[in-house]
Amino acid sequence: MKDKNYFLTKAQENFPELKFSVLAPDITEFSGSNGDSILLDLGQHAVGHFSFAFDRVDVFVDAPVRLVIKFGEDMREINDDFSEYKGVLSKTWLQEEIINLDFPQKVTMPRRYACRYIKITVEKTTRPIRLFDFSFRASTSADVSVLKSANTADALLNKIDCVATSTLKECMQNVFEDGPKRDRRLWIGDLRLEALTNYYTFINLEVVKRCLYLFAAGKCNESGFLPSFVYETPYYHSGATHIEDYALLYVVSVCDYFEHTGDRAVVDDLLGVCKLQLESFSATLDKNLIATKQDGWFAFIDWCPGLECMTALQGVYLYTLERFAELLKAIGDDEYEKYSALIPAVRSASKEHLYDEGKKVFANPSDNGQLSVHSQVWMILGGVITGEEAKRLLFSCLDNENFKQPVTPYMRHYVIEAMLKLGLKDDAVRYLKKFWGGMVELGADTFWEAFIPDELDFSPYNDRMINSLCHAWSCTPSYFIRKYGL
Amino acid sequence: MKDKNYFLTKAQENFPELKFSVLAPDITEFSGSNGDSILLDLGQHAVGHFSFAFDRVDVFVDAPVRLVIKFGEDMREINDDFSEYKGVLSKTWLQEEIINLDFPQKVTMPRRYACRYIKITVEKTTRPIRLFDFSFRASTSADVSVLKSANTADALLNKIDCVATSTLKECMQNVFEDGPKRDRRLWIGDLRLEALTNYYTFINLEVVKRCLYLFAAGKCNESGFLPSFVYETPYYHSGATHIEDYALLYVVSVCDYFEHTGDRAVVDDLLGVCKLQLESFSATLDKNLIATKQDGWFAFIDWCPGLECMTALQGVYLYTLERFAELLKAIGDDEYEKYSALIPAVRSASKEHLYDEGKKVFANPSDNGQLSVHSQVWMILGGVITGEEAKRLLFSCLDNENFKQPVTPYMRHYVIEAMLKLGLKDDAVRYLKKFWGGMVELGADTFWEAFIPDELDFSPYNDRMINSLCHAWSCTPSYFIRKYGL
Repeated sequence: MKDKNYFLTKAQENFPELKFSVLAPDITEFSGSNGDSILLDLGQHAVGHFSFAFDRVDVFVDAPVRLVIKFGEDMREINDDFSEYKGVLSKTWLQEEIINLDFPQKVTMPRRYACRYIKITVEKTTRPIRLFDFSFRASTSADVSVLKSANTADALLNKIDCVATSTLKECMQNVFEDGPKRDRRLWIGDLRLEALTNYYTFINLEVVKRCLYLFAAGKCNESGFLPSFVYETPYYHSGATHIEDYALLYVVSVCDYFEHTGDRAVVDDLLGVCKLQLESFSATLDKNLIATKQDGWFAFIDWCPGLECMTALQGVYLYTLERFAELLKAIGDDEYEKYSALIPAVRSASKEHLYDEGKKVFANPSDNGQLSVHSQVWMILGGVITGEEAKRLLFSCLDNENFKQPVTPYMRHYVIEAMLKLGLKDDAVRYLKKFWGGMVELGADTFWEAFIPDELDFSPYNDRMINSLCHAWSCTPSYFIRKYGL
Repeated sequence: MKDKNYFLTKAQENFPELKFSVLAPDITEFSGSNGDSILLDLGQHAVGHFSFAFDRVDVFVDAPVRLVIKFGEDMREINDDFSEYKGVLSKTWLQEEIINLDFPQKVTMPRRYACRYIKITVEKTTRPIRLFDFSFRASTSADVSVLKSANTADALLNKIDCVATSTLKECMQNVFEDGPKRDRRLWIGDLRLEALTNYYTFINLEVVKRCLYLFAAGKCNESGFLPSFVYETPYYHSGATHIEDYALLYVVSVCDYFEHTGDRAVVDDLLGVCKLQLESFSATLDKNLIATKQDGWFAFIDWCPGLECMTALQGVYLYTLERFAELLKAIGDDEYEKYSALIPAVRSASKEHLYDEGKKVFANPSDNGQLSVHSQVWMILGGVITGEEAKRLLFSCLDNENFKQPVTPYMRHYVIEAMLKLGLKDDAVRYLKKFWGGMVELGADTFWEAFIPDELDFSPYNDRMINSLCHAWSCTPSYFIRKYGL
């Protein structure tokens, strides 16, 4: 296996060109005094740096001027009182600054923001001030000029596709970020879905390659699992969190990449890392070939509160095994047989030990009786249950209050993937319109990190204010619409 | 008279070289988490820019870090709760910033601060952080290498001299600032006293010349009075305030400059402006040769609340007339006779109309019965009263509760000047030790804008927090000590 420096060098070789555009908000000038404020609308979601000029209206302003500048991805965020924030993530992600300006000047704010709206409040001035030359320098590594129309006759799907490609564009920076408002880091779960959509939209293969190498350079934990996220600023640094489903989906991401590029050199570089992920996971199977929860494990699957993940994780493992076996076959790898032989064995073991024949449903090995859409969907995607039986299972759990339901577009992606695997194209379209269309109806410019139609204040972090409203894992409608011709 | 552009060009020709020094505080590194704080002590008052580095302690800090950074000229300021500020000047002068840092980085704060102490509080972080590489890049246009010892055998006077020269050094930037914590603008009243002290300490003639030209370029009001202050940042701009005593003291400043340099070219450039100030003031004399208050006038004299200024102003006029006549005589100006002839006439008129022979005291023409040290001192400095009569008058009003007393070192300067004019050297030393020595005893590193020994919370602005603790007009003990060999 190549070493960290090799992978980082490859990641640097594939540094994407950022494209910059300067957005002017709807209002060009403002005059105001203490307590006055202005709301700027960029007309679209943007990621970048804000600048403006400040000067006197008439008499020279003889003391520093204090401004409060708030950036919102939507108007709810602008209207939120950040001082009431009670969430579990750091309040410092809420995009608001208090700045003091000594003299009339052109101000370029040093931090990057993700927003459509900018509210500037004059907190204190001794004389009326004028603010003007508002400008937002937005960046993305997505080249919109290569984006083709989705070619769907359905107006809502077309609208959904537009919002989805905007979402991806905004998250595509030096890496595939998960959501530009907060982390700015690269997570495997987001990378996989962004890369998938990217193959059908902006086709920026450099970014995908780069992200795959950045993870390969990361520090695996004792079990051999890749870190779930990496940072690049101010220096390369891989996270101390190791999510098992993400580690497996890294392998799927490499398979996706090869499927779309045939780029053998990259696969050769990353094959060792991929095998390590599957070996590490396989090592946890018990004598019945069922994955067993290890100390310190953190499976993600979805931001659904209290979700039991082991059955879903077993499905992710199978899903990965199948894709990886295909890859090994395609490149003529010696170990193809070894991996492919595992698939039917683990599938039948999963059916035998995780499926409740009486209730006709997959349960969790921890056996607290929890039922979830997540378990059913990943068992379907893992090929444990197929055909009519799988369809009945899927319909029986969706919108059934006895089952934990997906809360993120990330998990809903896999619901739709399961539907399409089962040939349920109409159901997939209905489901897509219901959830992503629901956000469109609520005025979304980009798709959100979490969305429960009847619970608009839902947050995985206990406070909606901190939710990301432009979240990479929500961009896959464009993948579905374009790949399956919806 | 030369035009504005000429004067501004001359001001630019005399742009002083700023000297920079890098100060390291007493503490070099700090590790802390939410709510923790560090107090840095630069060991001396400094004017400039603060920088520091921030990084993780162990685990990477995965969210922006919010710091509150407070700069204090003394420890009271550090301990003050700025949210309780109730003063009349803008709260934005209080030196405190809230900054958000996305990543480990070297931070150079963009604004200039005046401080000895810097308190950094970790308002919010998700992990312990480390702050280090603290550095303060201080500036001044005073060259300390030319500063000679005061040659006084008196330990307290020597200490006072050190604090006074520090005060001047800190206020000497591109211009003679009044106090580097707030305005950063050039006021005539401060310029005069700073220039005077500068002739006996740092001897930076370029700065004096520059400041004189900057005022000459200013926009006079309809009466012909110079603006009382000018700004240079971000562009040259003269203030809309016209203080009559300051306009006169500009003339005195030009006289001082010639006295110390013999620089005829500068006097030739500025003579017209000087004459205009005296002509403008003379035009307000009534038939008795007493100045009459005009609509919109704003005399300063001192920050003493409710002070009636007209008698003092008459004294400033006489003081200026005398100095200006000397200048005209020295340069052989045609109008010497005209100006010098006015002096005895105005003096005797002042004695006749402003002096209460019964009470043996100067009152104010507005005749509300207010008595003040200010009136007596300026009548002495104007030569209206002299010798033993003047001495008795001075002793009768100082520390007499029936008289308004000076509240600023600015006005106290003129008290001492009056004493020295009357040959009262010992009294001058006592007075100097009482007021400036009082600040030294309270730990002053630099002399304050306002100081009343029994009223340490006094502020001209209704809140002590906003007071400048390094104020130009308080630097003159070095002038007295060095000029008069105290």
